[in-house]
Parts: sequence; C-alpha cells; structure tokens
Amino acid sequence: MAQVRLFVEHPLGEGQSVSLTREQAHYLFGVMRLGPGDSLLLFDGRSGEFRAKVAEAGRRGGTLICAAQTRPLRMPPDLWLMFAPIRKARTDFIVEKATELGAARIRPVQTEFTNAERIRRDRLRAHAIEAAEQCGGTFVPDIDDLARLDTVLDGWPADRNLMFCDEALAGQARPLAHRPGPWAILIGPEGGFSPAERARLVAMVQAVPVSLGPRILRADTAAVAALTLWQSRLGDW
Amino acid sequence: MAQVRLFVEHPLGEGQSVSLTREQAHYLFGVMRLGPGDSLLLFDGRSGEFRAKVAEAGRRGGTLICAAQTRPLRMPPDLWLMFAPIRKARTDFIVEKATELGAARIRPVQTEFTNAERIRRDRLRAHAIEAAEQCGGTFVPDIDDLARLDTVLDGWPADRNLMFCDEALAGQARPLAHRPGPWAILIGPEGGFSPAERARLVAMVQAVPVSLGPRILRADTAAVAALTLWQSRLGDW
Repeated sequence: MAQVRLFVEHPLGEGQSVSLTREQAHYLFGVMRLGPGDSLLLFDGRSGEFRAKVAEAGRRGGTLICAAQTRPLRMPPDLWLMFAPIRKARTDFIVEKATELGAARIRPVQTEFTNAERIRRDRLRAHAIEAAEQCGGTFVPDIDDLARLDTVLDGWPADRNLMFCDEALAGQARPLAHRPGPWAILIGPEGGFSPAERARLVAMVQAVPVSLGPRILRADTAAVAALTLWQSRLGDW
Repeated sequence: MAQVRLFVEHPLGEGQSVSLTREQAHYLFGVMRLGPGDSLLLFDGRSGEFRAKVAEAGRRGGTLICAAQTRPLRMPPDLWLMFAPIRKARTDFIVEKATELGAARIRPVQTEFTNAERIRRDRLRAHAIEAAEQCGGTFVPDIDDLARLDTVLDGWPADRNLMFCDEALAGQARPLAHRPGPWAILIGPEGGFSPAERARLVAMVQAVPVSLGPRILRADTAAVAALTLWQSRLGDW
C-alpha cells in the first residue's frame, strides 16, 4: 500500500505532537482508513519529512506523534514562476506542475491582454500542497496574490534574471546561458504581450528572451517546458 | 476575432471543394456562427494549411472551397512518445501536450505494473486534432492501439534510440547526447517498471537512461519534461 503523506502547518520535530484539523482527520481516518498506531509521513514545508504515528483518531480531530526524520528539507532553487492566469483548470495545472518541477515562488501576473479572473490563493495553495504530498516533496512554493505585470516590473530586483518566453520574439531568442544571481521565468499570456510590455521586457538588462520551439504552445505547456529547460540547464537536475 | 482552424480528413489543394460532416457543420455554423462567404483555415495533416471559404452552410452539412495555401506542412521530428496510460484525464493531457510539443507518433504501452484501462483511440485522436487546431499545427500525430511493452520491445527497430525515463535509475542516467537515427521516449508508469522490464531496457543498446531531476514527477509531467528536453537538445527547437 502506498504510504500516506500529509502536509501540516505545524512545525515538526522528533517527539512533537500534532493536532489535526477536522479536514485532516476526515482524510486520514475516513478516506485513508488509518487508526491508532498506524504510521504515516508528515512534512511542514520547513523541517523536512518525519514518520509519525496516530495517537488519537476522532471524527472531528486527532493527534499524531512525530518519530524520526525520514528526509531533510529539500529546497528548490531560488526560481520564481510568473504567468497570466486564464482558465481555472489550466491555472490549477500550472501550480501543480510548478510544485513538481521545483519553483520556489509562484507569482500570477495580470498583463494588458489578459482579463484575469481573480485567483483563489487558498485553492491554488491547496493544489500546491497536494502536488507536494503526491510527489514526495518537502517544500511547498509560496503563491502570491495576482499583481499587475507593470507593478511587478517596477519593483524588479536588480540581481534577478528574467527568462522571458514569448513566441513573437523567436528571432531574438538567446540561448539560456548561466548568469549569476537568482532567476524568474515569465510565460507570455495566450493573447501575447502588448507592444508596450514587450518593449519594456526587451529593454530590461535582467531579461533573457528564450524560444520554446517552432510550434505555438498553450500557456500551461509553455510553463512546464520553460521550467524543464531552466532546471535542466541551470537548476538542480 | 481569432481565426477558425479546422482539421479535415479530406486531402486539400487550391480549388478543392470539401464536404463537411454533420459535426463539422454544427461547429462552424452553429458554434462559431460562420456563414456563406466567411473565411477559415483548413489543414489535413498532409498538405499544409489552406485558406477556405464557406460555399454552402446547412444544419447537417455544407461545402467549403479551398483557396491558397497559407502554410506548408510542417512535420515534427521522427519521435515516438510511449507511455503507460492510467487515468483518463492525464492520458488526454499527455496526447494534447505531445501534439503541441511535436511528437510524430504516440504509442500507449501496457507495463507489468499498470492496470491500463482500454484506451479509446478515437477519443485520443480527437484530443490530438483539437490541440493541432488550437496551436497552429499542420500535423496530427498517429496514435497506436494499446500494446504490451514487451511486445513493442520484441519488435524494436535496430536503429531507433530509446530515451528512457525512470527515476529509479537516476544514478545510471546519461546525458542526452546526439546519436544518429530516429528516437523514441519511454515514460515510466507511476508504479515504476518491474525488475524484469528495467533489466531488459537497460540491456538494450538503443536505450539511453535519462534523469528528470531529483523530484518525483507524475507521468504527465514527466512526458512534457521529456519531450521538452529531447526537442531542445536533439529536436527542432
């Protein structure tokens, strides 16, 4: 049987007892059918992964006791993923994949040509947590509120490189070469960047325009492809 | 307004008239609200893309007339994607992404540790067609019936390299280097390969074990990541 892995907000350590929320109790005891004495794996996004045992199991809550650490915290590289959210299912998908592929922070941005619905951070965070639970991760990326791209670029850190994927720039694309400092990936919205946005991005010294091939990719495909390229050339693969 | 793009089975050429099926007529005239004289783009997967005009529009059918070619056929590299189908939504997704990222042929395989439901080739083909319509493609990958992995390997072409992604082999992974001949990508099932399958794959001279990083990826993420790696290093990016 596959090992149950659960993310908890509570800081973990050997011997630590952890109280469960009603939802967690429902999942562990109702859905996964665990009971007192059963073992599972816990992580909190900061302290690594621990084996734990069920001490008390109730319908509305319960208590777990942490045993030994089973894995240290594994942080992803200092990489942001920025994208313009469009449809809910594809936004959920991008958050799931960014967690699996190792982004440290996810920043949804509103561009001139995207009519972004409001995002639900709690919902996106739940997707990131589920992806980390499923994929053996010990870290859950931070998810920012939706912000306007121009506001984000106004406050852009001088040392953070920006891999910038825009099919209209295929001719100006540069190879993804090593540069010192942290990175971010920016995925163009499906409607494309506006001329003003494109001009501003191209003029940034931190920006590296990158091509994702001769075929037009949907935004969610482009996000996974860009994360893969970055991780395989500059990241921890 | 975005240009309507439609895949048709009928071979295309300038001046060619094309009869529509009931479903195509419903889509063009009912959903997209086109009428006589309106223009759209057609492709057949073999002849490139053509501008066409609506000649007759009916509730159960209609006729289009091809004008000039707007794009030549763009074939993807001779790359197969093989994966073990599990859940329907993720299988659909893999087919969509393989079309966008440029695979020529999709071969679903049954491994020892996957209890694959039967696949619906017609449904998967519809997903591939829709992806090509949306993404400006002029080619739709072939989709094979589900076959047992050992049967596929029994008939493996001597000259076809096999990029083989298996997280249990991370230590034996080799860089994805250029080799002559066509390629295939094989994505491990979520339950992993059996020891016998793994031994057989490792022993194949055509096989190149490749690592997809230190995090465990779901099969659909692994498929997109592997296609990206291959295309960016050995393909047409």
